[in-house]
Amino acid sequence: MSTTSEFRFTFTSHAQHTDLSSAHLTAEDMGLPADINIECKLQTLRGGKQQGSKLITLTVGDKTLRVVPTRAMAILDATRGELRYGWDSPVKEVVHPSFINQEASGGLGWLDGFNEMVARCGYQWAGHPGEDNGEMLTLHGRIQNTPADDVVLIVEQEPPYRVTLKGRVDEKRFKFTNFEVHTELSLTPDEPYIHIKDTLHNLSNYDNTYQAIYHNNFGSPILEQGATLHVAGTQVSPFNEYAIQGLHEWDQMPAPTEGFDEMVFNVLALEDEDGMSHALMKNATGDAAIEVSWSNSTLPVLTIWKNTDTVEQGYVVGIEPGTSFAYNRKHQRDLGLVPTIKGKSSKTFHVRFGLLTDNEAIDASQAKIEAIQRTPMLLSNNPLVQL
Amino acid sequence: MSTTSEFRFTFTSHAQHTDLSSAHLTAEDMGLPADINIECKLQTLRGGKQQGSKLITLTVGDKTLRVVPTRAMAILDATRGELRYGWDSPVKEVVHPSFINQEASGGLGWLDGFNEMVARCGYQWAGHPGEDNGEMLTLHGRIQNTPADDVVLIVEQEPPYRVTLKGRVDEKRFKFTNFEVHTELSLTPDEPYIHIKDTLHNLSNYDNTYQAIYHNNFGSPILEQGATLHVAGTQVSPFNEYAIQGLHEWDQMPAPTEGFDEMVFNVLALEDEDGMSHALMKNATGDAAIEVSWSNSTLPVLTIWKNTDTVEQGYVVGIEPGTSFAYNRKHQRDLGLVPTIKGKSSKTFHVRFGLLTDNEAIDASQAKIEAIQRTPMLLSNNPLVQL
Amino acid sequence: MSTTSEFRFTFTSHAQHTDLSSAHLTAEDMGLPADINIECKLQTLRGGKQQGSKLITLTVGDKTLRVVPTRAMAILDATRGELRYGWDSPVKEVVHPSFINQEASGGLGWLDGFNEMVARCGYQWAGHPGEDNGEMLTLHGRIQNTPADDVVLIVEQEPPYRVTLKGRVDEKRFKFTNFEVHTELSLTPDEPYIHIKDTLHNLSNYDNTYQAIYHNNFGSPILEQGATLHVAGTQVSPFNEYAIQGLHEWDQMPAPTEGFDEMVFNVLALEDEDGMSHALMKNATGDAAIEVSWSNSTLPVLTIWKNTDTVEQGYVVGIEPGTSFAYNRKHQRDLGLVPTIKGKSSKTFHVRFGLLTDNEAIDASQAKIEAIQRTPMLLSNNPLVQL
Repeated sequence: MSTTSEFRFTFTSHAQHTDLSSAHLTAEDMGLPADINIECKLQTLRGGKQQGSKLITLTVGDKTLRVVPTRAMAILDATRGELRYGWDSPVKEVVHPSFINQEASGGLGWLDGFNEMVARCGYQWAGHPGEDNGEMLTLHGRIQNTPADDVVLIVEQEPPYRVTLKGRVDEKRFKFTNFEVHTELSLTPDEPYIHIKDTLHNLSNYDNTYQAIYHNNFGSPILEQGATLHVAGTQVSPFNEYAIQGLHEWDQMPAPTEGFDEMVFNVLALEDEDGMSHALMKNATGDAAIEVSWSNSTLPVLTIWKNTDTVEQGYVVGIEPGTSFAYNRKHQRDLGLVPTIKGKSSKTFHVRFGLLTDNEAIDASQAKIEAIQRTPMLLSNNPLVQL
Repeated sequence: MSTTSEFRFTFTSHAQHTDLSSAHLTAEDMGLPADINIECKLQTLRGGKQQGSKLITLTVGDKTLRVVPTRAMAILDATRGELRYGWDSPVKEVVHPSFINQEASGGLGWLDGFNEMVARCGYQWAGHPGEDNGEMLTLHGRIQNTPADDVVLIVEQEPPYRVTLKGRVDEKRFKFTNFEVHTELSLTPDEPYIHIKDTLHNLSNYDNTYQAIYHNNFGSPILEQGATLHVAGTQVSPFNEYAIQGLHEWDQMPAPTEGFDEMVFNVLALEDEDGMSHALMKNATGDAAIEVSWSNSTLPVLTIWKNTDTVEQGYVVGIEPGTSFAYNRKHQRDLGLVPTIKGKSSKTFHVRFGLLTDNEAIDASQAKIEAIQRTPMLLSNNPLVQL
Repeated sequence: MSTTSEFRFTFTSHAQHTDLSSAHLTAEDMGLPADINIECKLQTLRGGKQQGSKLITLTVGDKTLRVVPTRAMAILDATRGELRYGWDSPVKEVVHPSFINQEASGGLGWLDGFNEMVARCGYQWAGHPGEDNGEMLTLHGRIQNTPADDVVLIVEQEPPYRVTLKGRVDEKRFKFTNFEVHTELSLTPDEPYIHIKDTLHNLSNYDNTYQAIYHNNFGSPILEQGATLHVAGTQVSPFNEYAIQGLHEWDQMPAPTEGFDEMVFNVLALEDEDGMSHALMKNATGDAAIEVSWSNSTLPVLTIWKNTDTVEQGYVVGIEPGTSFAYNRKHQRDLGLVPTIKGKSSKTFHVRFGLLTDNEAIDASQAKIEAIQRTPMLLSNNPLVQL
């Protein structure tokens, strides 16, 4: 896969005895023409529960990502030009995993650090906390509170000058789990896309079950009163009793609403001819949007998390493709949503984010989605699981 | 609030990209006349579970405090002249929060790091561990095992040369808690006092409940056989059945006593014309004492924790004003001791420590307390809560 | 104990304000003749959950140990000449304790970092997780996930040039536990032995119970099909129902076996005239072996842990002397295997590893063991505990 014409830079690697505290690489440092707008910085954060957190700020063309290697290569947020993608959680710190106790308060400790645009849930399990087969599962699994190793930047030296940021995250427990996740983020100066390609390796010779949810979260300015969601699918249903009342407007976004809390909808999405499913959320005027696309074969279901409560609570909508919905794992076996990964095999998850900032691109995305939706989506009043 | 005539020095600040490992500031460094005895050092501790702990040693006049930014700005101990305030816990290390699991052993993990003169309990809850409304509450809440950010020293350049040490501690969980605590310690060269002024901010727009206990702990040499406690109040009662037998001598301190374990007493204190309540513990000869004063409006109840067991177990008495007693939160609702903090509002807690080292000051403190006590305190044999 | 003719070097000491990140000492640095093959390196590990882990690589003669101060002075592995002692766990990282939550998944978090040749279990408790007297005990206790302080190398300047590596590990909880463990590893250039001498101090004036298991683990190349175990003892019995079927070949080692999982056997070992018990595991051809010897008075029972599953799962056999078997503590009281340590007293545990690499030494070891075994060992079909 590697050619001679690529620049590689290692931020963290046990094997190479490297763990940089700070770095700053310009396009020239990367061997690129100086007029290519690519830049990468690494910082170590300080103060409070950030002690030891790392933050990589990567600019590629008009896009800038902030990535957190110490939190499983999460994307904290992104910008394209003036437009910011992400959300404003009450949690302001980039919390280092050593300060998170996921077991706290019945398995809710994950929420102490939750503020990213892209938070991975998995891989031994994802979803709501609670006991399953005698094991206490904490909210959304362990991966997000695991620091990465082998954090490497790769910059192709020829157009389209693809920039890739890789990291490896282990989820291992003797006798139980022998997973390695190889994460990859890539983008080019001229495309509006961020590509995620994650590969889950089961290094055990035994089969194991797994779950993955990409908890992708977007708030203001795209999210606002009148913002709309566009997904091609066969069915949408409320997650629970509370969401039934919001089903008829599941794809219409309200202003920040006191007492709203969250409504969650379960969607079975359709895929295009390339096996990709797409969801678009655009602002009220239709000139700013996020398009989320994903590989339907490995991420067959979609959770829409409308957390359109007050700004202070975190006004945000999640567009979350997954192997599974957000229920506790015990509820998903009967739904066929606790897949198996064979021993010595791997699964690859593709997620692509389109940072769309003009009407034309947004309209095209919406048209693409509408073309996939050949028959109307069924709105079912019945939650898939009786909680 | 800030005037031109103050010196500011930042030890830790995410916003300012600052996190010093060591520092040493003399009076001259702070712009003061060299004959003013003010000095401040910062160290990073090493070895065992201290890895990463910070310690600030602050001398102001004849008083020296040791403050732990990585444990919510706790006061480890204090001295005035030769007299030491604090206690000798079996826990010798200044344990870094990353090594504390508060959930351990049914919620007792807090005890693995407990050795300070001033340990804050709160703010989502305080008190004994156990389930309340389906949530497992760990002993004394989360704040004490949270490192501070924005750790700043401020020194006024004119008499009385007030020195203030500030730190901010966050207690946040998405959807549940959005608290920030702004702590302030201040003292002057010529006064015998340490002032604590903590402000709890609820940044959510929703109301929330909270609890706070200032776990202030004093051992030898003030605590000794014949040491006495002086508090003006309306009522004292035993915490539980075991303490009933000690009620008649609740304010008399025994020598270290094998098998004593702890007796806890619940006091409803009276306040002076300024709204402050006071407790005084003086040694047998009455020439060394600690006076604890606090804002009764925000800290309406007082726990006296007589842990006068052996020296090895930690011979210590706690003088602990709080919003609440030390019971699990579930027991305190009916007592009206689970207060509410409105959305977007704050609560301020004042606690003052008088480090009294001469008979005259001690006698004056005792007289002040006796003057507040106009009618005798009721000794009730009945614990407020049947455990 | 200390003479003038020893070299001391401190890697970590709170008292001495020392915590080195890296170091490299040659024989000459230690004041030794240059032809003495003694060398010591310290590294700080990086990446993933290794962030902050320390590793000491100590070469003495033809033996090299890797010791982990941040994991209670565990021995990660050892080599003598070309032969490696230790095993290949699926957990590859030297996990820093700040990333371990021992309470996870019902008390199994210890397994997230388990990969050492020598892992200490204890000292408040050891054995399987579960509730005992209302307290949740996590797998194998807390000590192994505790970083050491006072990490010191001592090299005697005269033959046999004994090299000793010390570290102190605290296991303390206010009111509950006041233990300090002084660990000592020592070896000489010419002997094939690693000596462990650990002293558990109960600093409380109260008696307390304790448990200790030395979880010593050996995989390839010594472990292989046809490898055999040799122990002199009075009785061996299966740990549980599953192990009954393997009792007849409890001392015969199979090749890596899919679906084997683990069989555990409880052994009551005999001691030699010096109070030492011995176990020998040799390879099929009998030219490579590990001999484990221990002080029977303080480590009266032996667990044999046959985890001869697949290579990927961790093909390994544990030879584990202890105060106790691997049952939860609640099952061991009736067996008399929850000993008491008096207040203000100490217990010393000796464990010696013979790294045997020639037939002669191995035969001699086996002969020594057979000589102790005067009457045949009883094979009992009945587990000591009905689980």
